[in-house]
Amino acid sequence: MPSRFPRSPLLTGNDSEAKRAELLHYFHATFDRYESLFELLACDEAYYRKPISLRHPLIFYFGHTATFFINKFRLAGLIDQRIDPRLESMFAIGVDEMSWDDLDDSRYDWPTVAEVRAYRARARAVVDGVIRQTPLALPIGWNDPFWTVLMGIEHERIHLETSSVLIRQHALSYVRPHPDWQPCRERGAAPANELLDIPAGRVSLGRDLADPYYGWDNEYGWHQAEIGAFRAARHLVSNGEFREFVDAGGYADDSYWDEEGAAWKTYARAAHPTFWVRDANAPDGWKLRLLAEEVAMPWNWPVETNCLEARAFCRWKSAQSGLPVRLPSEDEWHRLHDHALPGGLADDAPAAANLHLDHWASSCPVDRFRHGELSDVVGNVWQWCETPTYPFDGFAVHPIYDDFTSPTFDERHNIIKGGSWISTGNEARHVSRYAFRRHFFQHAGFRYVVSDAAPSQPVSAYETDTMVSQYAEFHYGDAALGVPNFPQAMARLASDAQRRHGNGQWQRALDLGCATGRASFELARDFAHVVGIDFSARFIQIGSRLAENGSLRYTLPEEGELVSYHERRLDNLGLSESAGRVTFWQGDACNLKEGFRDFDLILAANLIDRLYAPRRFLETIAGRLKPGGLLVLASPYTWLEEFTKREEWIGGFKKDGESYTTLDGLKDILGEHFTLVEGPLPVPFVIRETRRKHQHTLSETTVWKRRS
Amino acid sequence: MPSRFPRSPLLTGNDSEAKRAELLHYFHATFDRYESLFELLACDEAYYRKPISLRHPLIFYFGHTATFFINKFRLAGLIDQRIDPRLESMFAIGVDEMSWDDLDDSRYDWPTVAEVRAYRARARAVVDGVIRQTPLALPIGWNDPFWTVLMGIEHERIHLETSSVLIRQHALSYVRPHPDWQPCRERGAAPANELLDIPAGRVSLGRDLADPYYGWDNEYGWHQAEIGAFRAARHLVSNGEFREFVDAGGYADDSYWDEEGAAWKTYARAAHPTFWVRDANAPDGWKLRLLAEEVAMPWNWPVETNCLEARAFCRWKSAQSGLPVRLPSEDEWHRLHDHALPGGLADDAPAAANLHLDHWASSCPVDRFRHGELSDVVGNVWQWCETPTYPFDGFAVHPIYDDFTSPTFDERHNIIKGGSWISTGNEARHVSRYAFRRHFFQHAGFRYVVSDAAPSQPVSAYETDTMVSQYAEFHYGDAALGVPNFPQAMARLASDAQRRHGNGQWQRALDLGCATGRASFELARDFAHVVGIDFSARFIQIGSRLAENGSLRYTLPEEGELVSYHERRLDNLGLSESAGRVTFWQGDACNLKEGFRDFDLILAANLIDRLYAPRRFLETIAGRLKPGGLLVLASPYTWLEEFTKREEWIGGFKKDGESYTTLDGLKDILGEHFTLVEGPLPVPFVIRETRRKHQHTLSETTVWKRRS
Repeated sequence: MPSRFPRSPLLTGNDSEAKRAELLHYFHATFDRYESLFELLACDEAYYRKPISLRHPLIFYFGHTATFFINKFRLAGLIDQRIDPRLESMFAIGVDEMSWDDLDDSRYDWPTVAEVRAYRARARAVVDGVIRQTPLALPIGWNDPFWTVLMGIEHERIHLETSSVLIRQHALSYVRPHPDWQPCRERGAAPANELLDIPAGRVSLGRDLADPYYGWDNEYGWHQAEIGAFRAARHLVSNGEFREFVDAGGYADDSYWDEEGAAWKTYARAAHPTFWVRDANAPDGWKLRLLAEEVAMPWNWPVETNCLEARAFCRWKSAQSGLPVRLPSEDEWHRLHDHALPGGLADDAPAAANLHLDHWASSCPVDRFRHGELSDVVGNVWQWCETPTYPFDGFAVHPIYDDFTSPTFDERHNIIKGGSWISTGNEARHVSRYAFRRHFFQHAGFRYVVSDAAPSQPVSAYETDTMVSQYAEFHYGDAALGVPNFPQAMARLASDAQRRHGNGQWQRALDLGCATGRASFELARDFAHVVGIDFSARFIQIGSRLAENGSLRYTLPEEGELVSYHERRLDNLGLSESAGRVTFWQGDACNLKEGFRDFDLILAANLIDRLYAPRRFLETIAGRLKPGGLLVLASPYTWLEEFTKREEWIGGFKKDGESYTTLDGLKDILGEHFTLVEGPLPVPFVIRETRRKHQHTLSETTVWKRRS
Repeated sequence: MPSRFPRSPLLTGNDSEAKRAELLHYFHATFDRYESLFELLACDEAYYRKPISLRHPLIFYFGHTATFFINKFRLAGLIDQRIDPRLESMFAIGVDEMSWDDLDDSRYDWPTVAEVRAYRARARAVVDGVIRQTPLALPIGWNDPFWTVLMGIEHERIHLETSSVLIRQHALSYVRPHPDWQPCRERGAAPANELLDIPAGRVSLGRDLADPYYGWDNEYGWHQAEIGAFRAARHLVSNGEFREFVDAGGYADDSYWDEEGAAWKTYARAAHPTFWVRDANAPDGWKLRLLAEEVAMPWNWPVETNCLEARAFCRWKSAQSGLPVRLPSEDEWHRLHDHALPGGLADDAPAAANLHLDHWASSCPVDRFRHGELSDVVGNVWQWCETPTYPFDGFAVHPIYDDFTSPTFDERHNIIKGGSWISTGNEARHVSRYAFRRHFFQHAGFRYVVSDAAPSQPVSAYETDTMVSQYAEFHYGDAALGVPNFPQAMARLASDAQRRHGNGQWQRALDLGCATGRASFELARDFAHVVGIDFSARFIQIGSRLAENGSLRYTLPEEGELVSYHERRLDNLGLSESAGRVTFWQGDACNLKEGFRDFDLILAANLIDRLYAPRRFLETIAGRLKPGGLLVLASPYTWLEEFTKREEWIGGFKKDGESYTTLDGLKDILGEHFTLVEGPLPVPFVIRETRRKHQHTLSETTVWKRRS
């Protein structure tokens, strides 16, 4: 083994030149170690043959980590020039392992290994120069140039691990043993596993920007949960324990697999864990593929599976045991960690875990590192969680790497925790959160838990539907073009009118056509209960989710395909208390359910010119108000046949030869039951379409008082 | 005959109570005379049977003129209440004689004649009260309440004439002679016609708001023209002269009829003028239908035709004579009027013309009233002109009657001039301009002229295409939402850049994607010659028309179907001098013709994200500039697949894993030949969609200098 691989540097300190030297060492050690990994390849051909069909050949990854530095440095303004635009274009982006259509070999005319080595040398010199010459202030903050330096180094450490997985998947003829990459030689029978009690407790995830270590965007923010007591397996599932499932025909029996798992299993023709090698000459008939060799099966090492195989094992185990066996949620993983390793793993070197490349270039027995009552709470192999990755509250993308995490907020990427024998730097910290598609392989296995509670399923997806995002931003986003927030303005106008002209009561308000609900929450500052109704279930869902979770996430188009990521929170808007006073319903303003009545105030903002029967709505709305109650209408009167048939328009045409406006129509229809007490008053609103394009409209507002 | 029918009152004066009395008399005399016309009807059934199928029965017109007062008075705020909403809805709108689908008898349940008489009495009392009680200041201006009073009276005088036409078209059994409506009894052989020289001269049409008589909207504004010498028939075409055409088989020979005329002739099965009645027992086989009787054909009276018949006669006459015989243009009619009646018809009573109802309730011989060398320059029957009606420069609709004229600006309504025996009030003034569809009948005939010059064909139509109108307003209209005019701002920015960074020359500028051309005109303040190029021929047409006529008219959507009418003029924008320095071409920015080169400055505002091949445009644009010339780009970078295929986008996507903005793309493409010398700078623009709805966008502006 080479000299000890350096750990993540602190962002803090008093001596910036010492920090500069530390970072220089951290960089070169990482760059060196990455190049050393490729010495496992036996020949040049090994660089160009793909280990697995859905990913680039290793030549790409050899160049990629160097190019990443150059690209991010340019983006951050740390350098002006590219080194080699052709190579940097080729080495820029990996391939999403799911998108088999994307990878078209003919598009690539890879450079020679020697060319890439020379390129890496030039890149190394550039990074070295940047680290030596860029002004360095401590602590290093999220927006500082050295954050980008650390980003490049931590990115290379991730690829150190993922490339090692590809090398494990490469044909044996393409690899050769290497003294720096020696596996563990300890092996034996699998230890019996057993369930241990994990007591109930509160977990607190996430961190803030003052945290003294570099982190990826998804680690920041906050998330807390109360976790009930559960039981957890003492050990990670070993090859031996998993063999029971294989031998029991678990891969052939679809009843143990969920739909996604069964589909993958069929596609991949999987019949056993991917690194297991059937060999009739081997003891027990199985060998295990390591980095550069196949060894007799170490039954006491952790099994490596994808998430789907791990879930199938748990179902089988449940059936066998009669217990609710499943993977832990991310929260449960933390509860288990806090319980077994209070204060975290000691910062010893070598670590008291198969982590940091401190021990071997492979897994080791599952009972080798004890952490409290459990073993391998961290290290050895990553541990699949039942939780699809999601952003913590307060999540924001990093401006220099805005798609590191955000594309994985899709309910298809599950979290792995704990790190493996080759996890170093940020990867080795227990706060780090990596996520992969559930069918994907890493040096990852699992620990099962037993719990009657369903694992929490946080909402991860960013709302990307154009209309819904537009309205989310319209209601909860930044003021655009200097125009005040419209639903807030309408709610204030309504409350002011209620004070001046209302029935003196503040019990019940109705926000009809509430869309994503902002005005409903705003009205609930003043009214004891607010009902928000909209025809669109998708809009209603936004309001409901906000009332439930207090937060909302969506993307907005910026320019072309580029998007920005946004989180909005009721607490930031001072609306947390309102949430409990609002209920949202899907409904039709032209055909309201009987129960919606006895309101003190009804707000209908930007509604009537989108109704199919506005006259029916207007003729019957008085019956929904208490006597003396107010109706607040606002509309730009943008009548369009696609929403309202011409004969249903309230105005905006010639009648008996004269111009007949919508306001004329409102007076004629509402006059029977209402008195116009305020307006018409134009209230502007802006709907943002892209960073530069907006709809800017005036909504004519009138306030009508129901006669007693 | 009753006592002399009062003439149009002056709007001016010093004694408002005397004016009030005069107006009261003018009103009652008109209201009385209108009712007297209906005494020609022989029975109640005559009110309900339609004289012609495409118009309402006379009961409608009996009520309509009264309702008109009430409706306009309400609109003007002179009264608060309707008299009878049911009747007023029925009597509100006539029927466009072209729209035969619209008239559905079943929709009408007409009131009795007695009811309408009673209604008219109530309306009379209301109008009387308004005239007596409304404050009256002199002179009476366009926006004064008494303008609306005069509008109602003049409107009734129009219907006095048009209803008399319907009565002439009614079955004889439904009419009866009346002492107040006695026709001329003078008749004889047709006088020979002959051509007289009308010398060249300038005509000046239109008037301003200070004119001392009430007028309709289309009379205001200004129009001047130089008219070359031509020849005009001394007399209106008489029944006798027209008979030659009838006898020659003119109605059967399609070669004399234009397409529109032939279509009408077939539809109407026309074989002779509409008021001619074939009667084998009559002398010569023909009689003429007057108001309430058929009389032996007065061959020396003017023939009455529609415009299509008059044109056919002229074609036949051309063929017979070998001369270029045609109808006069409106301008030629004025030239002829100014030549024969300099200073206009004397204000004598009775008039020296068959006008004002001063003489008979019918035409009279064409040589009865001599005006200079000609006869019947005004009066007897209206005279069809070759000119479709159009607005004078400076035209604006009247707010209380915005659809009096504007719907006739459609190239389908031709002007009639001169008035008939029953034309009174405004109708009898030679400045008045009435227009009817060319197939329509009035007490109208024609005088032919002989000229080699083609009659001028002014553009009448308001641009109503949504996109073109939007851009016309965007370029030439009012500032919306407080945002300065965008093409003007862009041109100023371009000129400023030229001063700071340009090649010191101001010869040639190119406005690429010029749309309706405002920036081209603005650039021509500074550049000696400006070329405006756009892909849209419809946009280019707007710019070209402006350069040619100096004015532009369009409608804008206000609310629903309601529109507003707008005229924009280069002189008001201080751009009259620019017009001569701008040429517009239809062209494709991605494939420009060779000749467009050697420019000192090229402006491309809001262009690149609407091109199908923006890269090709950007790669080749340097070759169009002189060395050191400037390229001014502005765009919101709103890339859409409908305009630009995804692979053609310049930016707005992830490239090599990083956000690649359009500005990045511009730098990469333009960098070869250009240096970025200014920007990026956001310049806002607003496109008005309705009175309340707008697009509000920021266009990112950059200035690039071509390296020498």
